Amino acid sequence: MAAVLIREATEGDCGDIMKMIRELAEFEKLLDQVKISEGALKTDGFGENPFYHCLVAEIPPESREPQGQGIGSKIIKKVAEVALEKGCSQFRLAVLDWNESAMDFYKARGAKDLTVAEGWRFFRFDNEAMRELVRM
Amino acid sequence: MAAVLIREATEGDCGDIMKMIRELAEFEKLLDQVKISEGALKTDGFGENPFYHCLVAEIPPESREPQGQGIGSKIIKKVAEVALEKGCSQFRLAVLDWNESAMDFYKARGAKDLTVAEGWRFFRFDNEAMRELVRM
Repeated sequence: MAAVLIREATEGDCGDIMKMIRELAEFEKLLDQVKISEGALKTDGFGENPFYHCLVAEIPPESREPQGQGIGSKIIKKVAEVALEKGCSQFRLAVLDWNESAMDFYKARGAKDLTVAEGWRFFRFDNEAMRELVRM
Repeated sequence: MAAVLIREATEGDCGDIMKMIRELAEFEKLLDQVKISEGALKTDGFGENPFYHCLVAEIPPESREPQGQGIGSKIIKKVAEVALEKGCSQFRLAVLDWNESAMDFYKARGAKDLTVAEGWRFFRFDNEAMRELVRM
Protein backbone atom coordinates (compact mmCIF):
# COMPACT_ATOMS: atom_id res chain seq x y z
CA MET A 1 0.00 0.00 0.00
CA ALA A 2 1.35 3.40 -0.96
CA ALA A 3 1.97 5.75 1.96
CA VAL A 4 0.06 8.90 2.78
CA LEU A 5 1.95 11.95 1.55
CA ILE A 6 2.10 15.05 3.77
CA ARG A 7 2.87 18.16 1.71
CA GLU A 8 2.41 21.92 1.71
CA ALA A 9 -0.98 23.06 0.47
CA THR A 10 -1.25 24.86 -2.86
CA GLU A 11 -3.86 27.36 -4.04
CA GLY A 12 -5.57 24.53 -5.89
CA ASP A 13 -6.30 22.74 -2.59
CA CYS A 14 -8.48 25.59 -1.28
CA GLY A 15 -11.74 23.98 -2.40
CA ASP A 16 -10.94 20.81 -0.45
CA ILE A 17 -9.61 22.79 2.53
CA MET A 18 -12.85 24.80 2.61
CA LYS A 19 -14.81 21.53 2.63
CA MET A 20 -12.75 20.22 5.56
CA ILE A 21 -13.11 23.48 7.51
CA ARG A 22 -16.88 23.10 7.20
CA GLU A 23 -16.79 19.41 8.14
CA LEU A 24 -14.71 20.13 11.24
CA ALA A 25 -16.97 23.04 12.23
CA GLU A 26 -20.00 20.82 11.81
CA PHE A 27 -18.44 18.20 14.08
CA GLU A 28 -17.66 20.98 16.58
CA LYS A 29 -21.27 22.23 16.34
CA LEU A 30 -19.91 25.64 15.35
CA LEU A 31 -20.81 25.76 11.66
CA ASP A 32 -22.40 29.21 12.12
CA GLN A 33 -18.94 30.55 12.99
CA VAL A 34 -17.41 29.73 9.59
CA LYS A 35 -17.10 33.13 7.91
CA ILE A 36 -14.34 32.46 5.41
CA SER A 37 -14.90 31.70 1.72
CA GLU A 38 -12.74 29.74 -0.71
CA GLY A 39 -11.72 33.05 -2.32
CA ALA A 40 -10.54 34.49 1.00
CA LEU A 41 -8.64 31.27 1.75
CA LYS A 42 -6.75 31.75 -1.52
CA THR A 43 -6.02 35.43 -0.94
CA ASP A 44 -5.00 34.95 2.71
CA GLY A 45 -2.80 31.91 2.24
CA PHE A 46 -1.13 32.40 -1.11
CA GLY A 47 -0.35 36.09 -1.38
CA GLU A 48 3.00 37.76 -0.81
CA ASN A 49 2.78 37.76 2.98
CA PRO A 50 0.52 34.80 3.84
CA PHE A 51 -1.76 34.92 6.90
CA TYR A 52 -1.50 31.15 7.39
CA HIS A 53 0.42 28.07 6.29
CA CYS A 54 -1.26 24.76 5.64
CA LEU A 55 -0.25 21.12 5.26
CA VAL A 56 -2.43 18.57 3.49
CA ALA A 57 -2.39 14.77 3.54
CA GLU A 58 -2.66 13.18 0.14
CA ILE A 59 -4.19 9.73 0.23
CA PRO A 60 -3.18 7.31 -2.52
CA PRO A 61 -6.06 6.87 -4.99
CA GLU A 62 -6.14 3.09 -4.43
CA SER A 63 -7.06 3.55 -0.75
CA ARG A 64 -10.41 5.26 -0.58
CA GLU A 65 -10.72 5.01 3.22
CA PRO A 66 -8.84 7.78 5.06
CA GLN A 67 -9.28 6.15 8.52
CA GLY A 68 -6.57 4.01 10.07
CA GLN A 69 -3.68 5.38 8.03
CA GLY A 70 -2.18 7.43 10.85
CA ILE A 71 -2.84 10.73 9.07
CA GLY A 72 -3.25 12.59 12.37
CA SER A 73 0.06 11.30 13.72
CA LYS A 74 1.91 12.05 10.50
CA ILE A 75 0.53 15.55 10.11
CA ILE A 76 1.19 16.58 13.72
CA LYS A 77 4.73 15.22 13.47
CA LYS A 78 5.26 17.29 10.33
CA VAL A 79 3.95 20.39 12.12
CA ALA A 80 6.56 19.82 14.86
CA GLU A 81 9.30 19.41 12.22
CA VAL A 82 8.33 22.64 10.47
CA ALA A 83 8.07 24.49 13.79
CA LEU A 84 11.55 23.34 14.87
CA GLU A 85 13.01 24.23 11.45
CA LYS A 86 11.57 27.74 11.74
CA GLY A 87 12.98 28.13 15.25
CA CYS A 88 9.66 28.07 17.12
CA SER A 89 9.95 27.33 20.83
CA GLN A 90 6.49 25.75 21.03
CA PHE A 91 3.29 25.14 19.14
CA ARG A 92 -0.22 25.55 20.42
CA LEU A 93 -3.60 24.07 19.66
CA ALA A 94 -7.17 24.96 20.55
CA VAL A 95 -9.36 22.00 21.58
CA LEU A 96 -12.98 21.77 22.72
CA ASP A 97 -13.28 20.30 26.21
CA TRP A 98 -15.85 17.67 25.18
CA ASN A 99 -13.58 16.39 22.41
CA GLU A 100 -11.97 13.71 24.59
CA SER A 101 -10.44 11.79 21.71
CA ALA A 102 -8.62 14.90 20.42
CA MET A 103 -7.38 15.76 23.92
CA ASP A 104 -6.18 12.18 24.49
CA PHE A 105 -4.48 12.19 21.10
CA TYR A 106 -2.51 15.39 21.89
CA LYS A 107 -1.68 14.35 25.46
CA ALA A 108 -0.41 10.95 24.31
CA ARG A 109 2.04 12.83 22.07
CA GLY A 110 3.35 15.09 24.83
CA ALA A 111 1.10 18.15 24.74
CA LYS A 112 0.11 19.88 27.97
CA ASP A 113 -3.37 21.25 28.69
CA LEU A 114 -2.48 24.85 29.53
CA THR A 115 -6.02 25.75 30.55
CA VAL A 116 -5.89 23.11 33.30
CA ALA A 117 -2.18 23.44 34.15
CA GLU A 118 -1.78 27.22 34.14
CA GLY A 119 -5.28 28.66 33.84
CA TRP A 120 -5.09 30.08 30.31
CA ARG A 121 -8.42 31.11 28.77
CA PHE A 122 -9.37 32.17 25.25
CA PHE A 123 -11.06 35.53 24.81
CA ARG A 124 -12.52 36.60 21.48
CA PHE A 125 -13.63 39.89 19.96
CA ASP A 126 -15.88 38.98 17.05
CA ASN A 127 -16.49 41.25 14.07
CA GLU A 128 -19.36 43.16 15.71
CA ALA A 129 -17.35 43.60 18.95
CA MET A 130 -14.38 44.92 16.96
CA ARG A 131 -16.62 47.47 15.22
CA GLU A 132 -18.04 48.56 18.58
CA LEU A 133 -14.55 48.87 20.03
CA VAL A 134 -13.39 51.12 17.20
CA ARG A 135 -16.43 53.38 17.76
CA MET A 136 -15.83 53.61 21.55
CA MET B 1 -0.89 67.35 28.30
CA ALA B 2 0.33 65.70 25.10
CA ALA B 3 -1.51 62.53 24.13
CA VAL B 4 -0.14 59.01 24.13
CA LEU B 5 0.90 57.99 20.62
CA ILE B 6 0.13 54.45 19.42
CA ARG B 7 2.41 53.48 16.55
CA GLU B 8 3.90 50.42 14.84
CA ALA B 9 7.01 49.11 16.54
CA THR B 10 10.38 49.45 14.83
CA GLU B 11 13.48 47.31 15.19
CA GLY B 12 14.88 49.91 17.56
CA ASP B 13 12.05 49.22 20.03
CA CYS B 14 13.09 45.59 20.57
CA GLY B 15 15.13 46.33 23.70
CA ASP B 16 12.11 47.96 25.36
CA ILE B 17 9.75 45.25 24.06
CA MET B 18 12.02 42.58 25.54
CA LYS B 19 11.92 44.41 28.87
CA MET B 20 8.10 44.51 28.79
CA ILE B 21 7.85 40.82 27.83
CA ARG B 22 9.92 40.00 30.92
CA GLU B 23 7.88 42.35 33.15
CA LEU B 24 4.61 40.80 31.97
CA ALA B 25 5.96 37.26 32.43
CA GLU B 26 7.12 38.17 35.93
CA PHE B 27 3.63 39.44 36.79
CA GLU B 28 2.18 36.21 35.32
CA LYS B 29 4.66 34.16 37.41
CA LEU B 30 5.90 32.56 34.18
CA LEU B 31 9.32 34.19 33.81
CA ASP B 32 10.93 30.76 33.29
CA GLN B 33 8.91 30.43 30.07
CA VAL B 34 10.52 33.44 28.38
CA LYS B 35 12.85 31.85 25.81
CA ILE B 36 13.17 34.68 23.29
CA SER B 37 16.11 37.09 23.10
CA GLU B 38 16.26 40.65 21.80
CA GLY B 39 18.11 39.34 18.74
CA ALA B 40 15.39 36.82 17.93
CA LEU B 41 12.72 39.51 18.42
CA LYS B 42 14.50 41.58 15.76
CA THR B 43 14.90 38.69 13.32
CA ASP B 44 11.35 37.40 13.81
CA GLY B 45 9.53 40.74 13.61
CA PHE B 46 11.49 42.76 11.09
CA GLY B 47 12.55 40.37 8.36
CA GLU B 48 10.93 39.90 4.97
CA ASN B 49 8.06 37.73 6.19
CA PRO B 50 7.57 38.76 9.83
CA PHE B 51 6.35 36.24 12.43
CA TYR B 52 4.56 38.93 14.43
CA HIS B 53 3.39 42.53 14.31
CA CYS B 54 3.65 44.86 17.26
CA LEU B 55 2.21 48.20 18.37
CA VAL B 56 3.86 50.39 20.98
CA ALA B 57 2.51 53.27 23.05
CA GLU B 58 4.80 56.27 23.19
CA ILE B 59 4.34 58.33 26.33
CA PRO B 60 5.19 62.03 26.08
CA PRO B 61 8.46 62.74 27.92
CA GLU B 62 6.78 65.30 30.22
CA SER B 63 4.51 62.62 31.72
CA ARG B 64 6.67 60.08 33.46
CA GLU B 65 3.75 58.11 34.90
CA PRO B 66 2.25 55.62 32.42
CA GLN B 67 -0.79 54.84 34.62
CA GLY B 68 -4.12 56.54 34.08
CA GLN B 69 -3.54 57.56 30.48
CA GLY B 70 -5.82 54.94 28.98
CA ILE B 71 -2.99 53.19 27.17
CA GLY B 72 -4.73 49.81 27.37
CA SER B 73 -7.95 51.17 25.86
CA LYS B 74 -6.11 53.00 23.10
CA ILE B 75 -3.91 50.08 22.15
CA ILE B 76 -6.74 47.53 22.08
CA LYS B 77 -8.83 49.90 19.95
CA LYS B 78 -5.94 50.21 17.53
CA VAL B 79 -5.62 46.41 17.36
CA ALA B 80 -9.31 46.21 16.39
CA GLU B 81 -8.77 48.91 13.71
CA VAL B 82 -5.81 47.07 12.20
CA ALA B 83 -7.67 43.74 12.34
CA LEU B 84 -10.70 45.21 10.53
CA GLU B 85 -8.46 46.89 7.92
CA LYS B 86 -6.77 43.55 7.23
CA GLY B 87 -10.13 41.81 6.87
CA CYS B 88 -9.91 39.72 10.05
CA SER B 89 -13.24 38.35 11.27
CA GLN B 90 -12.15 38.26 14.92
CA PHE B 91 -9.21 38.72 17.24
CA ARG B 92 -8.28 36.51 20.15
CA LEU B 93 -6.46 36.91 23.41
CA ALA B 94 -5.01 34.55 25.98
CA VAL B 95 -5.70 35.51 29.61
CA LEU B 96 -4.80 33.82 32.91
CA ASP B 97 -7.90 32.93 34.93
CA TRP B 98 -6.63 34.64 38.12
CA ASN B 99 -6.06 37.91 36.24
CA GLU B 100 -9.51 39.31 37.07
CA SER B 101 -8.68 42.87 36.10
CA ALA B 102 -7.56 41.82 32.61
CA MET B 103 -10.66 39.65 32.12
CA ASP B 104 -12.94 42.49 33.32
CA PHE B 105 -11.14 44.91 31.01
CA TYR B 106 -11.70 42.71 27.93
CA LYS B 107 -15.28 41.83 28.84
CA ALA B 108 -16.18 45.48 29.38
CA ARG B 109 -15.03 46.09 25.79
CA GLY B 110 -17.12 43.31 24.29
CA ALA B 111 -14.87 40.24 24.37
CA LYS B 112 -16.32 36.83 25.11
CA ASP B 113 -14.64 34.20 27.31
CA LEU B 114 -14.55 31.28 24.86
CA THR B 115 -13.23 28.84 27.44
CA VAL B 116 -16.34 29.40 29.57
CA ALA B 117 -18.82 29.94 26.69
CA GLU B 118 -17.74 27.17 24.32
CA GLY B 119 -15.20 25.04 26.19
CA TRP B 120 -12.04 25.97 24.28
CA ARG B 121 -8.77 24.91 25.89
CA PHE B 122 -5.15 25.71 25.09
CA PHE B 123 -2.79 22.81 24.44
CA ARG B 124 0.95 23.31 24.08
CA PHE B 125 3.81 21.26 22.73
CA ASP B 126 6.97 22.78 24.19
CA ASN B 127 10.39 22.46 22.58
CA GLU B 128 11.21 19.14 24.27
CA ALA B 129 7.77 17.71 23.36
CA MET B 130 8.26 18.79 19.71
CA ARG B 131 11.64 17.04 19.61
CA GLU B 132 10.10 13.88 21.08
CA LEU B 133 7.26 14.04 18.56
CA VAL B 134 9.67 14.24 15.62
CA ARG B 135 11.55 11.19 16.94
CA MET B 136 8.34 9.13 17.38
